[in-house]
Amino acid sequence: MEKIAIIGSGNVAWHLCKGLQNEHIEISGVYSKTFANSQAFAREFGLEVYQDLEMLNKAEVDLVLVAVNDDQTARLIEQIAAHHKVAYTSGSVNLKDIDHPQVGVFYPLQSFTKGKKVNLFEVPFFIEAKNMELGEQLFDLAWKLSRKVEYADSNTRSELHLAAVFANNFTNHMYSLSKELLENSKGKFEHLLPLIFNAVDKLKNSAPEDIQTGPARRNDEQIIAQHLDKLEGDKKEIYKIISSSIQKKYHEKL
Amino acid sequence: MEKIAIIGSGNVAWHLCKGLQNEHIEISGVYSKTFANSQAFAREFGLEVYQDLEMLNKAEVDLVLVAVNDDQTARLIEQIAAHHKVAYTSGSVNLKDIDHPQVGVFYPLQSFTKGKKVNLFEVPFFIEAKNMELGEQLFDLAWKLSRKVEYADSNTRSELHLAAVFANNFTNHMYSLSKELLENSKGKFEHLLPLIFNAVDKLKNSAPEDIQTGPARRNDEQIIAQHLDKLEGDKKEIYKIISSSIQKKYHEKL
Repeated sequence: MEKIAIIGSGNVAWHLCKGLQNEHIEISGVYSKTFANSQAFAREFGLEVYQDLEMLNKAEVDLVLVAVNDDQTARLIEQIAAHHKVAYTSGSVNLKDIDHPQVGVFYPLQSFTKGKKVNLFEVPFFIEAKNMELGEQLFDLAWKLSRKVEYADSNTRSELHLAAVFANNFTNHMYSLSKELLENSKGKFEHLLPLIFNAVDKLKNSAPEDIQTGPARRNDEQIIAQHLDKLEGDKKEIYKIISSSIQKKYHEKL
Repeated sequence: MEKIAIIGSGNVAWHLCKGLQNEHIEISGVYSKTFANSQAFAREFGLEVYQDLEMLNKAEVDLVLVAVNDDQTARLIEQIAAHHKVAYTSGSVNLKDIDHPQVGVFYPLQSFTKGKKVNLFEVPFFIEAKNMELGEQLFDLAWKLSRKVEYADSNTRSELHLAAVFANNFTNHMYSLSKELLENSKGKFEHLLPLIFNAVDKLKNSAPEDIQTGPARRNDEQIIAQHLDKLEGDKKEIYKIISSSIQKKYHEKL
């Protein structure tokens, strides 16, 4: 993979472009459905802008890397010339649903935010492809960025993606709700940070089910009722359903 | 506070006893409602066992530190002799609900698991007391363990405790559910650890609402529907309600 074209100008495209350039892999140009985004992206990384897919289809590149939203991935790849090799970064799009002869998957299991540094070396990449040659090429490319590269079929990738929504997106929303709860309090969200860092640190040596604590884990109905009294709206519903899920997991089997 | 008696033999008692002994503060003895627990605890830390509260009430100690479940705290403290100074570690018990003339709060905002090392120095301690002299003594005692000691009224403490349930207990349950989702998959929970560590690391420099990602944050109804199709039971309900809460937070105001 000597020369790569990128489609997309979002968080994933940004981090992969940065990582690939750091490894001295040539990125030839970028296409994004919003021309202004392509221009800004191209300026930042010193790339050519493909004004449309036709221009990209005529370009001489070894790989087209598609880093767009999951729901745009399939439709977009079907417009890429059959002689191009293509790889996409989505966690949930099934390879068999994509109608292109030379397509594969290059899925970094990470939540990227533009400008927030990520150590790609520790990011697991999951590879899949319609033919073995492309699969090996994508594996080698990922190996330049990371030491955690594995082959995974579409089903496994989609299971990982769903699990990651719980482990990353939902946990982050819990932090947001927790911060909202302290908005009019003398207590500050910052006070919770040592608790949060310590909790995650325990995962290095313990399974999450073995370190569960809290009122629901202790089956402390009195505190649960007291907390529910103070909550309303989404937070109340979320408190109820997660507490009940914890109680079921730890107490129903006793 | 030269000599402290501890009531309770659970996670909080264990960590406070360890921390206090490390600072060369004398722990005289321990009382726990289960005698065998008192014995094991006393043996581990080299303490006397108070066989009942009467024995403890006769002991010469400067402070009785009560580290028992929230729902046992008030009832227990009311049995402690009025001449003893008492402090309890609960997040949610209101000081005004406790009928003892010399009582205060010594609340470490941390989730303790026996044997799992905690850096107490970084743990915020919240102090409150019925009289100022005891408040200052408890502040000084906490200051020997931590560099994050603050006075907080019962209401603030209880708000912090509720926020901590979201930030710590509920997030940990999300990890458990995420691990359950991968139980019969080729994907492993270990694959998610870099994602998890990176997500929490971002909180050092960013507010949680600014780093939210995922299908609900993107309002990607197609992926949400695809995920819901794969889920059942608690996980399905939890996915629905948290996704809807994220969508409301980020999209309804647009």
